[in-house]
Amino acid sequence: MSSKTPVPAGFVGVAGNIGIKDPQDDFFTVVSQVPTAVSAVFTQSRFAGPSVRLSREAAADGRARGVTVIARNANVATGQIGTADAREVQEGVARAAGVDPDQILIASTGVIGRPYPMDRVRSYLEELPTEFPPADLDRSAAAMMTTDTHPKIASATVGGATLTGIAKGVGMIEPNMATMLTWFFTDAALEQPVLDAVFRRVVDRTFNALSIDTDTSTSDSAAIFANGLAGPVDVAEFEEALYGVALSLVRMIASDGEGAGKLIEVRITGARDDAQAKRIGKAVVNSPLVKTAVHGADPNWGRVAMAVGKCSDETDVFPENVRIVFGDVETFPKQATEETLERAARHMKGDEVVISVDLGISEGAFTVYGCDLTEGYIRINADYTT
Amino acid sequence: MSSKTPVPAGFVGVAGNIGIKDPQDDFFTVVSQVPTAVSAVFTQSRFAGPSVRLSREAAADGRARGVTVIARNANVATGQIGTADAREVQEGVARAAGVDPDQILIASTGVIGRPYPMDRVRSYLEELPTEFPPADLDRSAAAMMTTDTHPKIASATVGGATLTGIAKGVGMIEPNMATMLTWFFTDAALEQPVLDAVFRRVVDRTFNALSIDTDTSTSDSAAIFANGLAGPVDVAEFEEALYGVALSLVRMIASDGEGAGKLIEVRITGARDDAQAKRIGKAVVNSPLVKTAVHGADPNWGRVAMAVGKCSDETDVFPENVRIVFGDVETFPKQATEETLERAARHMKGDEVVISVDLGISEGAFTVYGCDLTEGYIRINADYTT
Repeated sequence: MSSKTPVPAGFVGVAGNIGIKDPQDDFFTVVSQVPTAVSAVFTQSRFAGPSVRLSREAAADGRARGVTVIARNANVATGQIGTADAREVQEGVARAAGVDPDQILIASTGVIGRPYPMDRVRSYLEELPTEFPPADLDRSAAAMMTTDTHPKIASATVGGATLTGIAKGVGMIEPNMATMLTWFFTDAALEQPVLDAVFRRVVDRTFNALSIDTDTSTSDSAAIFANGLAGPVDVAEFEEALYGVALSLVRMIASDGEGAGKLIEVRITGARDDAQAKRIGKAVVNSPLVKTAVHGADPNWGRVAMAVGKCSDETDVFPENVRIVFGDVETFPKQATEETLERAARHMKGDEVVISVDLGISEGAFTVYGCDLTEGYIRINADYTT
Repeated sequence: MSSKTPVPAGFVGVAGNIGIKDPQDDFFTVVSQVPTAVSAVFTQSRFAGPSVRLSREAAADGRARGVTVIARNANVATGQIGTADAREVQEGVARAAGVDPDQILIASTGVIGRPYPMDRVRSYLEELPTEFPPADLDRSAAAMMTTDTHPKIASATVGGATLTGIAKGVGMIEPNMATMLTWFFTDAALEQPVLDAVFRRVVDRTFNALSIDTDTSTSDSAAIFANGLAGPVDVAEFEEALYGVALSLVRMIASDGEGAGKLIEVRITGARDDAQAKRIGKAVVNSPLVKTAVHGADPNWGRVAMAVGKCSDETDVFPENVRIVFGDVETFPKQATEETLERAARHMKGDEVVISVDLGISEGAFTVYGCDLTEGYIRINADYTT
């Protein structure tokens, strides 16, 4: 946070404290001074809140100007009041920014089932400046945090363009379409359909490959805003940069998973296809018994075998073709010795644990990300207020 | 354990210590003196071990004589050695019991990936008596335990017949066809196809409605042996008794879930059909955030809404039709007050927490069982040796 992360040209904004719950920043808006192409994906939860519904509408035509976020309250399962409140926030921000309300995506994160404290929200919106200063994306990333222990931000350059992404989320994380609140801003110029295709491909291999606790949030939203001020870029180069930035954010989210001490990376290879590799990777990375074994730095490959085995619909998986590796140490089928188990345990004592499983079927591959399960997760979630 | 649980007529057996790991009982065999009808269901894990494969063959013709169990070692992912070892155990027990090997079901439970200590197993089998005393089902239930804190046994009478069931299992429990090692013995006379239909119906509503940690074991096996010595019984009455005994065992397993402090019962009603109710019930009872909220006695109904919502394929579920109740306290959609939340929290401080969700679609209903997620689960599974 000491040295500021680069902000792409033309993005302005404000961040501050509404007082939703405490005196920490709980609000930000980032808006482009010129129209932007937008691509956005959202939670598939049946309990998606009004923010998700309004944002889906705002992004539907592939054009938008920016995003506004309120933290410490998800505004989910709040009925018609919640919908009216979300619209009022969207309108208040749009008024200050001088744009149409349907050009502003809105998101909200925090406890479910409580209406916004609208008196405080209203007076805050009325006092918004009508001329926004350049956006402060470091401060915006921090303003979204709930149980996050640090802000998540990553940046890259592509040709003459800047790409910066911010994210939040440490629990209720197994995104189905996107993870809890992730925003990318770039001054690169890309046609919206190209941007959209690139973004969806990247999200599928990054945010959709992440699971902290199998619980899909009601509020997941991810969008990229491209305002074109830096001119055209090489699309392949842009996709690679976006993948890198997104993966950095995913790794930050996994490492900061509620109570987590370690990042777990599960690499599935030799699958029938990538989709099968992803399903099996998710079963491994989500297994509470694998997660606790990683917490205990125990190379308990039998639990990995169990997690692969419980995917009972994968009828082309046969134990005799499966290979299980911790770090670079094979533990199955090669009979693990005291020495190899010790080497595997040493790998597992590190901050990042890599579990590789080859299914021996074909060329399908997928890597998923998660974290260990610790007493800290229990403490945070048994005590976190309703 | 002080007063013995009734044993149906004609069942004999032995229990004792092979020395697989420690001096506690780790072996038992129960055999009927006359042929029995048998119905059995097994794990669908792709990593099912040789015991499951041999038992599946033994039960295939609907006739068997009994079961033998080795605990503290699952004999899973042990290759061809494991298969030969399982067969040797099956044959040794059959020889002592004076029956064909393919009349004996075999099961094994414990750590995955280690061969049996066959020298000890062999000498133990050689010393088995050739005349078995009446079975001691209390001792047999105890001999199956791994991380279980107490044996699980339940009994009922139907007409003049006795029905007794024993079970083990406290982790790696989300049975797909049956739970980790459950055996029922009865002297009732039932035609095998009738017994089979009754057993499958009951298993579906009891063991298959249970999840402790979403992790399906490689060794799940459940069977019922009916030797007919007490003569025919009313089938409906028998099914009700079997359901009652099975449900008692399921509730014992859930309450004794690794580290668990509370039984969670999730009752889904108003679903499109029972299958939908079961899917959504499982999503709720398996949600780490719901489980930790129960641990904290926090009536966080927003997490229940989240868990229902993440079933994104259930496109006929709409938040405005959903009703969420803790104990007998409605928390959604009726706006929860301080007073109702306090009543709900009081219910959650008890040993058994009931969460009811009505989906408002149709008449489908299903109740599932689980337990809270605590620091104890982490400790047991981060420390349990590989």
